[in-house]
Amino acid sequence: MSFKILKKCPSTGARRGVLTTPHGEINTPVFMPVGTRASVKAMSPAELLDLNAEIILGNTYHLFLKPGMEIIGRAGGLHRFMGWERPILTDSGGFQVFSLSSLRKITEKGVHFASHIDGSRFFLGPEESMAIQRTLGSDIVMAFDECTPYPADYKTALQSMRRTARWEAVSRDQKLPDGRQLFGIVQGSVYKDLREESAKGLTDIGFEGYAVGGLSVGEPEETMFEVLDWTIPHLPADKPHYLMGVGTPKQLVEAVARGVDMFDCVIPTRLARHGSAYIADGTTIPVKAGRCAEDFTPIDAECGCYCCRNFTRAYIRHLFNVGEILGLRLLTLHNLYYFINLMRGIRESLDNGTFAEFRINCFNK
Amino acid sequence: MSFKILKKCPSTGARRGVLTTPHGEINTPVFMPVGTRASVKAMSPAELLDLNAEIILGNTYHLFLKPGMEIIGRAGGLHRFMGWERPILTDSGGFQVFSLSSLRKITEKGVHFASHIDGSRFFLGPEESMAIQRTLGSDIVMAFDECTPYPADYKTALQSMRRTARWEAVSRDQKLPDGRQLFGIVQGSVYKDLREESAKGLTDIGFEGYAVGGLSVGEPEETMFEVLDWTIPHLPADKPHYLMGVGTPKQLVEAVARGVDMFDCVIPTRLARHGSAYIADGTTIPVKAGRCAEDFTPIDAECGCYCCRNFTRAYIRHLFNVGEILGLRLLTLHNLYYFINLMRGIRESLDNGTFAEFRINCFNK
Repeated sequence: MSFKILKKCPSTGARRGVLTTPHGEINTPVFMPVGTRASVKAMSPAELLDLNAEIILGNTYHLFLKPGMEIIGRAGGLHRFMGWERPILTDSGGFQVFSLSSLRKITEKGVHFASHIDGSRFFLGPEESMAIQRTLGSDIVMAFDECTPYPADYKTALQSMRRTARWEAVSRDQKLPDGRQLFGIVQGSVYKDLREESAKGLTDIGFEGYAVGGLSVGEPEETMFEVLDWTIPHLPADKPHYLMGVGTPKQLVEAVARGVDMFDCVIPTRLARHGSAYIADGTTIPVKAGRCAEDFTPIDAECGCYCCRNFTRAYIRHLFNVGEILGLRLLTLHNLYYFINLMRGIRESLDNGTFAEFRINCFNK
Repeated sequence: MSFKILKKCPSTGARRGVLTTPHGEINTPVFMPVGTRASVKAMSPAELLDLNAEIILGNTYHLFLKPGMEIIGRAGGLHRFMGWERPILTDSGGFQVFSLSSLRKITEKGVHFASHIDGSRFFLGPEESMAIQRTLGSDIVMAFDECTPYPADYKTALQSMRRTARWEAVSRDQKLPDGRQLFGIVQGSVYKDLREESAKGLTDIGFEGYAVGGLSVGEPEETMFEVLDWTIPHLPADKPHYLMGVGTPKQLVEAVARGVDMFDCVIPTRLARHGSAYIADGTTIPVKAGRCAEDFTPIDAECGCYCCRNFTRAYIRHLFNVGEILGLRLLTLHNLYYFINLMRGIRESLDNGTFAEFRINCFNK
């Protein structure tokens, strides 16, 4: 068993666990910084280690297009290519094929599409996605899925979910090196019976972990939590549960309470590049705004990150104002510290049996 | 005496020294990374400490415009504003007023000019420059000068040099806090008698250090060395000599051999952002070029920097190819390491009495 649950919260669905991979152990619940193009934007691998990021995410679609699999293969895989020795999870490419590329034609075997970079034509299906992720050397491989757009009518969502189910069965049939894990992805849009059917179908196939996909795509926040409430109970309780592409700090805490163990999201890094920083109450402040120009306090005086220990809002605002790269470096570092530290707080509260209180109080600052 | 010469090369003009400032000691010969707008581009202060940068340079003109002196004053000076605890040298603003701004009108008191950012009108003269550098809290303050353009006819160069001399005398008359040092700047274009007159005039005024300005502005390299040969012998031998805005690795070694102790230059950081990296023979390679796409070796296998210890040319080329910030971070770090390490090598050879050999062999790799 690669996933071990150490503690369960008695009053919510939250779990404290450890996931073992070929590149090391991951303490869950965990937040995975996103390294789309073989780099977590603006960060170095050494800084990610300092932040104690235990796993990062890479994007199959982007890496397949640039630098391409020949180069990553010759480099000895994604870990060696980018100098990251801890675990890597890669997505299947499905999400980006449907959200970024154009001229898509879906067949039973996969998707013909045109690159968003230069329009060149490619084909990606479950077999191709698995082959790419083998070359990448991912510790955790995602099965190829179609991320159902939102909103989708019932019939579209049904057809999409069932095609995903067939693709995931094909993904399962592909060989993976020892110790590499394959996660299935639940789809079914906002329809309870489709989510249930998807969850049960994947459980029948059998995966090392289960992701909930197709959320945080425009639906109301309550709908997202409802879908989790419908879905998670139908997934194997002894396997890791991964909520893809989510979310805000408050959403992470609420999803943990519903039994989610793993998260990835571009929010902390993207907002940092836009000049916003997370503060203790779970909201952000626009550090690059003029109102911070004479604010000689740190972003958060209680925060232990390199940015908050050494620099003021006024300095970071100046860096953004004149376009210095250090500004977005410092905010990226702060925001990732914030997310990783939030997950550490969640894990400690689970270890101590105080998660229910943590959930209520963690943003009351 | 704030400057102490520890060793002299018996066969060249090179010297090994230590310069003491309110924020610590500087081992010379030294290269000063340029932090124009309160940031050495793409670097954090912690990384500069790791590189053992002993002093950095700030730009009066840029900081005066943004964020402006009120904000830096309220922050407690430039050191505190940017989180840098080691020494800072600031230029006088003269160079940028003459090279960047427009609508200049020169009077005996200084220069009326329009900001290159938004055209607003300002006035900068020796008194204003000194007041700004007091607010910045610079350890080493540069006297206000006119950087004579190249080429300049004799009469223009004469008038410009004599005006600079008068401005430097006014600069000397301004009060500086204890321990802060004022450096004069030799001008005189490429005319031997003007350089001599300037050097002697400044020596008569008396400064804590002497800079050679108006070089690396388009003149042939041999002319630059000639000007040094004419100038340095007329400067006090027991004071630090600073060659402003220079240069390539080979130029640094040659200038050290002529008695220069201090350098600043944007070359290593600027070339890094353009995708070029220094290698052992003192030249650069275009790491962002397609020919590095499948080169799985480090920039320099012998280099001890974070970039060369962890990443290949192929990876850095990929980062540039897709526009990831880490690419220019890694090359900036490598190039600064290269310059700082070159100066360390020069100092060691002076300590060991082997500088003459070092000068001949250091790029034969």
